[in-house]
Amino acid sequence: MSDSQHKPGSDKLWGGRFSEQAAASLEAFTASIQYDFRLYHHDIMGSKAHARMLAQQGLITPEENESIQRGLDEIEEEIRAGRFQFRQDLEDIHMNIESALTARIGEAGARLHTGRSRNDQINLDMRLFLRDECATLDQLLADLQACFARLARKHLGAIMPGYTHMQRAQPVLLSHHLLAYAAMFGRDRERLADCARRINVLSLGAAALAGTGLPLDRTQVAKELGFPKISENSMDTVADRDFVLETLFCLDLIQLHLSRLSEELVLWSSKEFAFVRIGDRYCTGSSLMPQKKNPDIPELVRGKSGRVTGALISLLTTMKGLPLTYNRDLQEDKEPLFDALDTVKASLAITAEMLDDTVFDVDRMRAATEGGFMTATDLADYLVKKNLPFRQAHGVAGRIVARCQELGCELADLSLEEMRAFSPLIGSDVYESLSVEGSVNSRTTLGGTAQFRVEEALSALEQQLGIQP
Amino acid sequence: MSDSQHKPGSDKLWGGRFSEQAAASLEAFTASIQYDFRLYHHDIMGSKAHARMLAQQGLITPEENESIQRGLDEIEEEIRAGRFQFRQDLEDIHMNIESALTARIGEAGARLHTGRSRNDQINLDMRLFLRDECATLDQLLADLQACFARLARKHLGAIMPGYTHMQRAQPVLLSHHLLAYAAMFGRDRERLADCARRINVLSLGAAALAGTGLPLDRTQVAKELGFPKISENSMDTVADRDFVLETLFCLDLIQLHLSRLSEELVLWSSKEFAFVRIGDRYCTGSSLMPQKKNPDIPELVRGKSGRVTGALISLLTTMKGLPLTYNRDLQEDKEPLFDALDTVKASLAITAEMLDDTVFDVDRMRAATEGGFMTATDLADYLVKKNLPFRQAHGVAGRIVARCQELGCELADLSLEEMRAFSPLIGSDVYESLSVEGSVNSRTTLGGTAQFRVEEALSALEQQLGIQP
Amino acid sequence: MSDSQHKPGSDKLWGGRFSEQAAASLEAFTASIQYDFRLYHHDIMGSKAHARMLAQQGLITPEENESIQRGLDEIEEEIRAGRFQFRQDLEDIHMNIESALTARIGEAGARLHTGRSRNDQINLDMRLFLRDECATLDQLLADLQACFARLARKHLGAIMPGYTHMQRAQPVLLSHHLLAYAAMFGRDRERLADCARRINVLSLGAAALAGTGLPLDRTQVAKELGFPKISENSMDTVADRDFVLETLFCLDLIQLHLSRLSEELVLWSSKEFAFVRIGDRYCTGSSLMPQKKNPDIPELVRGKSGRVTGALISLLTTMKGLPLTYNRDLQEDKEPLFDALDTVKASLAITAEMLDDTVFDVDRMRAATEGGFMTATDLADYLVKKNLPFRQAHGVAGRIVARCQELGCELADLSLEEMRAFSPLIGSDVYESLSVEGSVNSRTTLGGTAQFRVEEALSALEQQLGIQP
Amino acid sequence: MSDSQHKPGSDKLWGGRFSEQAAASLEAFTASIQYDFRLYHHDIMGSKAHARMLAQQGLITPEENESIQRGLDEIEEEIRAGRFQFRQDLEDIHMNIESALTARIGEAGARLHTGRSRNDQINLDMRLFLRDECATLDQLLADLQACFARLARKHLGAIMPGYTHMQRAQPVLLSHHLLAYAAMFGRDRERLADCARRINVLSLGAAALAGTGLPLDRTQVAKELGFPKISENSMDTVADRDFVLETLFCLDLIQLHLSRLSEELVLWSSKEFAFVRIGDRYCTGSSLMPQKKNPDIPELVRGKSGRVTGALISLLTTMKGLPLTYNRDLQEDKEPLFDALDTVKASLAITAEMLDDTVFDVDRMRAATEGGFMTATDLADYLVKKNLPFRQAHGVAGRIVARCQELGCELADLSLEEMRAFSPLIGSDVYESLSVEGSVNSRTTLGGTAQFRVEEALSALEQQLGIQP
Repeated sequence: MSDSQHKPGSDKLWGGRFSEQAAASLEAFTASIQYDFRLYHHDIMGSKAHARMLAQQGLITPEENESIQRGLDEIEEEIRAGRFQFRQDLEDIHMNIESALTARIGEAGARLHTGRSRNDQINLDMRLFLRDECATLDQLLADLQACFARLARKHLGAIMPGYTHMQRAQPVLLSHHLLAYAAMFGRDRERLADCARRINVLSLGAAALAGTGLPLDRTQVAKELGFPKISENSMDTVADRDFVLETLFCLDLIQLHLSRLSEELVLWSSKEFAFVRIGDRYCTGSSLMPQKKNPDIPELVRGKSGRVTGALISLLTTMKGLPLTYNRDLQEDKEPLFDALDTVKASLAITAEMLDDTVFDVDRMRAATEGGFMTATDLADYLVKKNLPFRQAHGVAGRIVARCQELGCELADLSLEEMRAFSPLIGSDVYESLSVEGSVNSRTTLGGTAQFRVEEALSALEQQLGIQP
Repeated sequence: MSDSQHKPGSDKLWGGRFSEQAAASLEAFTASIQYDFRLYHHDIMGSKAHARMLAQQGLITPEENESIQRGLDEIEEEIRAGRFQFRQDLEDIHMNIESALTARIGEAGARLHTGRSRNDQINLDMRLFLRDECATLDQLLADLQACFARLARKHLGAIMPGYTHMQRAQPVLLSHHLLAYAAMFGRDRERLADCARRINVLSLGAAALAGTGLPLDRTQVAKELGFPKISENSMDTVADRDFVLETLFCLDLIQLHLSRLSEELVLWSSKEFAFVRIGDRYCTGSSLMPQKKNPDIPELVRGKSGRVTGALISLLTTMKGLPLTYNRDLQEDKEPLFDALDTVKASLAITAEMLDDTVFDVDRMRAATEGGFMTATDLADYLVKKNLPFRQAHGVAGRIVARCQELGCELADLSLEEMRAFSPLIGSDVYESLSVEGSVNSRTTLGGTAQFRVEEALSALEQQLGIQP
Repeated sequence: MSDSQHKPGSDKLWGGRFSEQAAASLEAFTASIQYDFRLYHHDIMGSKAHARMLAQQGLITPEENESIQRGLDEIEEEIRAGRFQFRQDLEDIHMNIESALTARIGEAGARLHTGRSRNDQINLDMRLFLRDECATLDQLLADLQACFARLARKHLGAIMPGYTHMQRAQPVLLSHHLLAYAAMFGRDRERLADCARRINVLSLGAAALAGTGLPLDRTQVAKELGFPKISENSMDTVADRDFVLETLFCLDLIQLHLSRLSEELVLWSSKEFAFVRIGDRYCTGSSLMPQKKNPDIPELVRGKSGRVTGALISLLTTMKGLPLTYNRDLQEDKEPLFDALDTVKASLAITAEMLDDTVFDVDRMRAATEGGFMTATDLADYLVKKNLPFRQAHGVAGRIVARCQELGCELADLSLEEMRAFSPLIGSDVYESLSVEGSVNSRTTLGGTAQFRVEEALSALEQQLGIQP
Repeated sequence: MSDSQHKPGSDKLWGGRFSEQAAASLEAFTASIQYDFRLYHHDIMGSKAHARMLAQQGLITPEENESIQRGLDEIEEEIRAGRFQFRQDLEDIHMNIESALTARIGEAGARLHTGRSRNDQINLDMRLFLRDECATLDQLLADLQACFARLARKHLGAIMPGYTHMQRAQPVLLSHHLLAYAAMFGRDRERLADCARRINVLSLGAAALAGTGLPLDRTQVAKELGFPKISENSMDTVADRDFVLETLFCLDLIQLHLSRLSEELVLWSSKEFAFVRIGDRYCTGSSLMPQKKNPDIPELVRGKSGRVTGALISLLTTMKGLPLTYNRDLQEDKEPLFDALDTVKASLAITAEMLDDTVFDVDRMRAATEGGFMTATDLADYLVKKNLPFRQAHGVAGRIVARCQELGCELADLSLEEMRAFSPLIGSDVYESLSVEGSVNSRTTLGGTAQFRVEEALSALEQQLGIQP
């Protein structure tokens, strides 16, 4: 051994067989510490559980374990306080911490990596990290749902045009429209919960790829870290990033939903719609045009959907065609994931905050339901109730609309005779069907926009979220 | 009404208010019948349930219902037999069928669309269709898992190099490697089952966007069609394509897994690896080079992962920034979905078929584990068991490897003295640890490659798949 | 040889070394004839040039060449007339044609593939095909530019709000807005022309990957087929799909531009904007709502941008990480390319057609420039001309806007005294600056919206397109 | 004005009309200074040219101009030296610099933004920045080409297997294979040069969207900043990010080419191929397996192709469906662009560096050309030269290969009689055609692998790069 000490070998912890120092450019290109440092808490959590298990299995002494536990706690505290010096030549969070630990507690530190590889260690760290992130996301989604619940409760009864093809289609309750978003984000929560089940699997113990010959107890580690499941195949375990991809997909759908909401907020902030006024505090002005007040937040949130889609594609492309098991390409999973998480969390939080400072101009919305023949479907349904086959009823209503357009009037402006010229089934009770309120409240199917249905849905949501209306 | 009959109005079922015929180019550009015809079975299934409910609710008579049921059955039979004439001017599968029905049974047909819109109808069709597709995919995934189980059972005991970074890392059982894929495809099945839960929601009854004023009974329709859940918000319902996106994501992950497997099959078919020989029946030759035998299937399967990722991105991009509720853009969900489904199903089926005609050259695999110091980790673990801290053990093993490289020999070729020069902890029992079989069988952690662990995993899989080993 | 005749060997043209028939599933999975048939014209064009060169080089006789030329012409005619039977077991367009040729003319047909491989042949076919497609696209883009030129000429002088952040920002000429699109599509034409230069390279002669030992004359083939350049490295040639990717990117940008235009058309068709009325012939109605008239074309065009992005991503993903040279994965280049070409060509054509049947409501546009303080920048510029530093001028104008908002009036409604309370620099000449027409015509910088600038730009475009205004 | 001073209005430079302070969360969410600071040099360059033009046009005094020039120089120096305090509440690089300038030189600073908007300013900055980046990329690509030229020159004459479908296909020169990459990167340079032409257009002067009413001279600014072209339509100008997208596409193709090279380097570093040995300085070891030496750099480069594709998709998705003109979404162009630029530049540089420290094992490559019937095409060509139609020649050669496989021998091991049993055209001169060297040097078509052709190509490349061989 003495002889190798005189060789110009590698200083790296893995450098035994290497006869040269790593190039600085290699270190700069391959190091991940500049972004994976943010896994420190979960890396340490995993190491502590690993060490306790090593001690229990007799692979280290109780004293060594205690020393490791204390050392790791101190290191975590240093990192949290911003006093820890991360070193690029130590590559990643694992080696930075192990190296600091050994510097601090000596030989016991050098025993920590027993039966473990960075291949399973990083996988564990990511799972612990994502488990927490999923919980955070779920809370942010619930907060946004609560925001919609508040708005829906506040504006209960307000009527606005419902759109298809960006054309006014049928009148709906503003609250119904708002609760459509609550439903979307509710699905996101479900999807994320399913994803979290697949995240919540212990990967440590797969070692480099094949398991280990040392007597580790994976069940013990799983129990301590709260994993209900243990990964079943060590090769699959270290080769797998499905759980990261699935998280990215869930994030992408959330941001997609936000992009749709944002599109509406941008439109509704326009002079043409003028359905909402986002608070000054959540808008910016123009460097050139003094009168401008711009809905920057929804624009950016909408724009950022590109970013999250990009992150998803990034990792999908990286994974394509990789043979088993671990390949260094997998290191490229972290930056898109972190960026997507930060983007979605920030977008969720600021959207809720902004919505709470947004005024809905319910009078203008109500006014927009007048004109445009928005109750033509009701007229058709009226005829159906008089037993005209639907397809004919649709035709009659369409022709009456065409006639109104010629005359420049609305449906309710036609006299009964004028109407009856199109169908003798029409009676004087038709005018009730043509009112906007009547239309809204007639839509009583489950999930429909009739006020009592919307109230039912709102109450259910409030209850689910634990909100007192 | 008479008066409008003399106008040059639209012939379309929706054309009451239109005063001109649609342009032929519009029809060609907007029609979807050329691809959505394949929803005919599910469209008819949905219409039949809808009609029965209409009858039950008194919106049509029992006779009308019977006539509709019979008419739809006949149309379905015609389509199945290839005798049905699809018309582009009727736009889509819904209008083609409704139009044929009315032509056949008269007025009752014109009542079928009562309380329904194509917005909720297409959503229902897609959900019914995808529910069946998910079941098919699950079966194909199970078949492929069964194929891996057969191969793993057949080759139990065969040893091959396990790779990380495409470098030989540690010896593993071929069966362990094969079961890694079974695990991946198992996760795909779980993910698909979660997705199917979100598909399995009744959307019919949302009507155009707001529900309907006619007394529909959604609960009844849900029951009849076997939907455990009913969509909660009509606006969200018609605006939503999350379930299509989630299916596309599940498909993409499956194809991604296939791309990794295919990459390995291509590599293993190369002269350099020569680990497998795919049967002649599943290879092709070259138009120019007479000696060539090419692994076209795995190449194409790998290449097609691009196609499925493209399909996912296609719809993600389409959905980005769309305001509520239905927009015609949503029509663009079908072609990528159909293409992705066809691609993944074909890839799964042919991969399994080809694997069953593939010979694994276990001798060559075994030979590849010799040389390359694949048991260097075992040497380090040996030293750990002698109580050397792992990090030092790793260093010693690394230096011994470097020494062997200088000498051009393998680990087991060194004499005990030579070894002990690196660490006095090494005893004559070290040679056992250096054997490939010893290495494999030492890896007894849960999920590890030791033969008994692999047998456990295999038996569990066989049991789950209902296979008699 | 006799002995091999009795073996159950492969029937394939490449099947000499194979001892088994290909599986039917292999044929179905790997065949490309179902889509590459559309290359038939270019495949035959390439084969004819190849044969002529073979004759010139003495590799076939003049008679054989003549027989090949005639045979290929007849086959092309058959295909064009729809009388040719494509066979899946012959895999692709190359083998289908070669096989038919040999059936028709005998041994000379069996000489056609001399010195050629499908690897360079398909590459040639794609380049010949894309060269024509680029010309078609260029024409469609020019047609759309011409449509914008017509509309800009027709509406010259009409004023509308220019938007940033979907907020009314400054008044502009409608023609200026329309010419913005002409500029975008002009860039697309430039980009496509650059791409076409890289397409326009002879690849035939690379053979399988290494060139050939037969005395081919690539210069002659290049000359005959009109290729100004010959590919320089045979291995790169058969491995390369850059030219397909670049075409896909150009297509994607075109569709992206169309998606922006379509978004505006959808918005402008809304009741809220009501800036345009798309002709009835280019709209559709609703199956449920009798009053609806939907802008389906721009919605679909916008939605289809996802499809073209998907096609680009599809091939990018497929190409990622492929080793040299040809891999069967490359076959996956065709379907996304064909689909993207069809999509973009159809979208360009129908957009132009629809725009020609679209009415711009210039009165409503003009009305929308009133109110909303759209000349506030002009007020700031007025103060700058009075030598107030811009940043202060911006502040003053902003405060005057705020004051107007409090008072519920417009800028021009303030009295001179009221204005001067904000800045003594304001004189009675300020009111000119506040008029919408004055604002538009003041913007005389190159590329600005002043009418004479727009006329300059329009005339330049008309000249470039060869249009008589 | 006095009255507004007492209001709690906005401090922002654009805040005149705002009555409330911006929310801290808005500032954090919308600020771009944390990444656009890197445009400082180009922002200042643009501002200096703008100020000089303002002075020339009499919009500011010569003294004000001088003061601006000096102030900006000092600020640039401060930023370069790391002494400048960037402030998030000042949003972006433009406002940070303008604010610092005004603080330093007073009123003249407040005049700098005259006739300019951040909408055209950021567009200018990006174009100036990208112009430089394109030059850097071109140099890095040329350096990598030079590296391939050196390697090709060094190994001239060395023979290796050429692969199709990862199967050994025909022998080629290693130099030919290396020059295939030089050709790819050469195309990247061309593509980038075309893109640079579209970048190299002056956008300043478009102002917010409509041009400006102040007498700016765009021609003068273009001249000073070296722009050969001036953007033609102000609305298109501020709405456009085509030049960013096109740059991202060029970057993506470069990284795609690198991913293919990297795939080969990873394969060639495997024990199975063992064609190359990457220097120890450019490899890393394993934390667990002492014997490992991993090709991390090519793995990461390959993996990073996902990242660049993600960046492209990110902006494509962001741009989809945006109406004119500027929308805040466009701010999302910078981070993906910067990340893609950094990724590609680093990947190009380290790949060249690593290749210079890579040993090609030409003996092993040469050995790999023996066996595997790599000259079967030559046998077919031999028969073609004896006037057998190619398709029959291919069949004969295929059957001879099949026979050799039965016998377990190579082509050249068959006796003349054995060969003649397959075709009487075979004479004793056939053996020359079967040698690997003969095969390589027979491929004399333009772009083929014959040594003199490769030397021609190499010399042409060296000349183009200005290298003395």
